[in-house]
Amino acid sequence: VRPETSRRLLLAAVDAFSDRGYNATTTREIAERAEMSSAALYVHYRSKAELLFEISRTGHEAVLRKVERALDGPTAPPERVQRFVEAFVSWHARNHVLARVIQYELRAIPPERFGEIRELRKRFDHLITGELERGIATRDFAVADVRTTALAILSLGIDVARWYTSHAEMPPEQLGAAYGVLVLGMTRGPALT
Amino acid sequence: VRPETSRRLLLAAVDAFSDRGYNATTTREIAERAEMSSAALYVHYRSKAELLFEISRTGHEAVLRKVERALDGPTAPPERVQRFVEAFVSWHARNHVLARVIQYELRAIPPERFGEIRELRKRFDHLITGELERGIATRDFAVADVRTTALAILSLGIDVARWYTSHAEMPPEQLGAAYGVLVLGMTRGPALT
Repeated sequence: VRPETSRRLLLAAVDAFSDRGYNATTTREIAERAEMSSAALYVHYRSKAELLFEISRTGHEAVLRKVERALDGPTAPPERVQRFVEAFVSWHARNHVLARVIQYELRAIPPERFGEIRELRKRFDHLITGELERGIATRDFAVADVRTTALAILSLGIDVARWYTSHAEMPPEQLGAAYGVLVLGMTRGPALT
Repeated sequence: VRPETSRRLLLAAVDAFSDRGYNATTTREIAERAEMSSAALYVHYRSKAELLFEISRTGHEAVLRKVERALDGPTAPPERVQRFVEAFVSWHARNHVLARVIQYELRAIPPERFGEIRELRKRFDHLITGELERGIATRDFAVADVRTTALAILSLGIDVARWYTSHAEMPPEQLGAAYGVLVLGMTRGPALT
């Protein structure tokens, strides 16, 4: 639970960073978007970098919770991979404004804070790698290079944040479902023809 | 053929935009990176936006030439799609600094210039869509939704610009080849199991 003013600042910062980029945004602009003074901003966050870190942390945690929930149920590897992709992709579509900040401003996170974000990011990699390995063991999947396949699956979801707009043709869930099917194709290995 | 100073400015602008983002970069910084005065910059480019447009146009033309050359030869749809992906992906890996600018700064291109870039971008979509349709006609591919599949294929290549670094594990061509195989999997449709 976050105090209301603190939350308003975070949301204003998400909009500003997503719109103009972290480097081009000043704390003054963020305060203005939140209809507050810069002094009031510093009561809640020590710096612009601290705001970015907070956005990044809460964003990564939100999508992680969503994929973990999606994996809580199905047991067959293909269905699990499909559910993972649906959750990951639809989150990036629905939250594309926030997603742009968490995915494209990683370099601006203060080095002493980056470790925490890196650990969160590793968990996605770990989850999808585990699912692929399980599916190889059950012979559901024929994946030649688990690492590159895991990378490609996450990459597909992340890039949704770049191109998805609120007036995109496909609702987030429908896009997630379509991508889930495409990724299952990827797991079947090269054609034998 | 571009005069040497003009070229030096373009390269300096690519580095600056890729590093800090278009909005956070000033023409003065670009001139400094090119070891020139701001006045000298304006002899060659009217504005920062004009530099971005020029970078975007030449970048899009370069990758377009590369994929067109890759398609000049093979006739079977699976091989053609594979060649397209190899060329598109390896270009984004090898030229990740430039690619970040052409893929992530589209919103900053002046509206009166954007039409030209949009037309270039449509050609990639047109090319891969055509290849998918050809492969459906020959029954090499089982693609339920050509549009989304084309989007996903381009998306995979574009996102390489985000994560690829000069010290990435895989050389550009090897990554392109691995992605080519993954995309062929995508074209095979959902598993029947």
